[in-house]
Amino acid sequence: EVDLAIFYVPNKVIPSILKDCIEKHVKGALIETSGFAEVGEVGLKLRDKIVEITDNFSKIRIVGPNCMGLTKIDGDSDTEAKGGFFSGFGVFDKYKRGNIAIITQSGMLNGGYLMNLMRNHPDVGIRYSCSIGNKMDMSEIEFLDYFLEDPTVNVIALYLESFKNPRKFIELCKKTKSIPNKTIILLKGGLTSLGQKASLSHTGSLAESSQLVKAIIRQSGVIQAGNLHDLFQFARSFSMIYKSGKKLPKYGNVSMIAGSGGAGTISADLIMKYGLNFAIMSEKTYQLLKELYPEWMPPNRFALLDLWPTMEKAMTNNVSQEEVMTRIWRAILDDPNVEGVFNMIFVSTRFSKRYNFQEMSKNKTDKIVFMWMVGENRAVRRITKLFNKNNIPVFPTLEETIRNFSILVQESKNKIGI
Amino acid sequence: EVDLAIFYVPNKVIPSILKDCIEKHVKGALIETSGFAEVGEVGLKLRDKIVEITDNFSKIRIVGPNCMGLTKIDGDSDTEAKGGFFSGFGVFDKYKRGNIAIITQSGMLNGGYLMNLMRNHPDVGIRYSCSIGNKMDMSEIEFLDYFLEDPTVNVIALYLESFKNPRKFIELCKKTKSIPNKTIILLKGGLTSLGQKASLSHTGSLAESSQLVKAIIRQSGVIQAGNLHDLFQFARSFSMIYKSGKKLPKYGNVSMIAGSGGAGTISADLIMKYGLNFAIMSEKTYQLLKELYPEWMPPNRFALLDLWPTMEKAMTNNVSQEEVMTRIWRAILDDPNVEGVFNMIFVSTRFSKRYNFQEMSKNKTDKIVFMWMVGENRAVRRITKLFNKNNIPVFPTLEETIRNFSILVQESKNKIGI
Repeated sequence: EVDLAIFYVPNKVIPSILKDCIEKHVKGALIETSGFAEVGEVGLKLRDKIVEITDNFSKIRIVGPNCMGLTKIDGDSDTEAKGGFFSGFGVFDKYKRGNIAIITQSGMLNGGYLMNLMRNHPDVGIRYSCSIGNKMDMSEIEFLDYFLEDPTVNVIALYLESFKNPRKFIELCKKTKSIPNKTIILLKGGLTSLGQKASLSHTGSLAESSQLVKAIIRQSGVIQAGNLHDLFQFARSFSMIYKSGKKLPKYGNVSMIAGSGGAGTISADLIMKYGLNFAIMSEKTYQLLKELYPEWMPPNRFALLDLWPTMEKAMTNNVSQEEVMTRIWRAILDDPNVEGVFNMIFVSTRFSKRYNFQEMSKNKTDKIVFMWMVGENRAVRRITKLFNKNNIPVFPTLEETIRNFSILVQESKNKIGI
Repeated sequence: EVDLAIFYVPNKVIPSILKDCIEKHVKGALIETSGFAEVGEVGLKLRDKIVEITDNFSKIRIVGPNCMGLTKIDGDSDTEAKGGFFSGFGVFDKYKRGNIAIITQSGMLNGGYLMNLMRNHPDVGIRYSCSIGNKMDMSEIEFLDYFLEDPTVNVIALYLESFKNPRKFIELCKKTKSIPNKTIILLKGGLTSLGQKASLSHTGSLAESSQLVKAIIRQSGVIQAGNLHDLFQFARSFSMIYKSGKKLPKYGNVSMIAGSGGAGTISADLIMKYGLNFAIMSEKTYQLLKELYPEWMPPNRFALLDLWPTMEKAMTNNVSQEEVMTRIWRAILDDPNVEGVFNMIFVSTRFSKRYNFQEMSKNKTDKIVFMWMVGENRAVRRITKLFNKNNIPVFPTLEETIRNFSILVQESKNKIGI
């Protein structure tokens, strides 16, 4: 008995082979071949023929055409329990089982780009990757529905050029709100007239008007990514938060610990831009910080900390900078008003003894910590690895750090229905 | 005769030493010390005293206080002609003389972050780096004025928490419009109420209202960066364009050469978001592409190229993929309607023979080429180096690629007075 037939043959011969499949009672077909809706008249005729043969897909279910395949990852590439990956671009050798499911209407995103991500972010695991192409029959709806029921999936990352069934999509997204530890992120291609032109020649998708897309996104409450990079990074952020069991922040009251006043000012602007706010520190925290800051530069009452003055005071008094840093770190993480911490770290050989990275990476509280790291490449890579292993994401830029935190707050509001 | 006195002493003793400097006819003072306007009452009194002693800065000019110093780079770190760099953060050992001048109201940006950039972007040279702190006397105005006259400077990157003299700032920016190969980029800190609070505690700057800042930026026509990363990347883009003598694009008619339909659709949306457009290809280019595309997937008339079908055709016909790629590349660069090319490259060992990177990096036309590269790390690094050496910037994400091109068009419009 055959579960799935995978089609690698030219478009014109597909109908006749499909007939054979139906006779043999094959349950599903995955059509990799392109040359359907995206090429116009000829392709549309082929599609009609397939609808007829399959009795409107009741005799056999179809994924594709014009797609790159489906993958479920059951193990890591370096363990015995190998998963499988389909890609025309090469052999996937750095994958890891994780809690992210991908549904994409672009083969390359499922193949090439994903391969790139897995190499560069070895701690981000994938559970499923589904390239759905033209969605002749099965679409994002079926996969979404399946992943919502699958407890091994926490994050669903979608790239869509069109919505197969907007009403059902909204319904599924709304359902997600009441499922703990489940988040959907959407990158919608074809938002603009130029994008619509492009998607028509890609998957043959007649993209919706931008007004309709806006309405779908608003009603569904889905987390929207504006580009590929954000889609991935948002997925990584949620993946790590869910894996580590940290609480989603409710209000967006954060602390920024920086080694630079300028970076502090820029952060403040970005924090406001993304709808967050600095927490007002508790009296206890403030008193503790006051001891560590020099008289000529007292700390703020709001949780923007420029560490430099504390370091100068420590150096002047011959106190261990690591000790000072650790006390500050603990005080901020223990402050009940602080929901999350952005930590800017300048990594250099000269400063390595300033931080206890091992302790910092453990973070035993339920607060979320995001790192922004600059400095010497090799050291940055080493410390990044340590933090990532402990599900603390490290970001290459300040704006990414803050943007990623803001979507956690958005999802938290989704979950409690604000 | 002493040109410059550099102050590393506590704030309280500065007035008396300044008196001595004036007696000795020292021309300038650079005050690294903090503890002035940013700490309130005490600091403001100290400032008043200095104004009195220096006869309102007529007896000696002052840079700072609360700054990290001035640097002019005359050579590269690996040549005999050493420049100098002041930083409390470490020794600058990877610097290179270039065409960028930095003016910043944050020490760390001048020190730590810059050090990071120089290590990570060895092809981006710096000419001057000036940390101006509280701007008690000399401000962005004097430095800007000086750099506009200096022919070794093409790009001026500014981080400001306040404008010392908005009217004069606007005037200097407007003057820049008529100077060829000169561009000013501004990151303004303290745009929001939260940012203003932060900058008050940093450089003691009473930041302007956001309405005023908007008006200053609009009137000056300066290129605005929204964060540190963009400030640097924009500077790098202009630096490379000016160094290589390429023309700034007038209309923003671009071509995207991608290996993925999905990336093409997302690019199209971003291209529209940033006010650019796909060029309509000339008949000659279109005919050439038609030969290289398979019948089942003809090329677009607008310059969005998904390369995949051409590669499939080449493979089917046993034609050299590199030959096909090179023909497409030349046709697009030679098309009179195309002002710039975004090239998405997926670098993998399997695909390396697809591209002639040596020839591509030379780009003998006056068109601007921006690269977006994903793939295997080591190969990406190697090819990035090659392109950067030839003043072709490589970007880590699609949105950065397109955003950076859009500011070239903005500056081009500034120059011709649109």
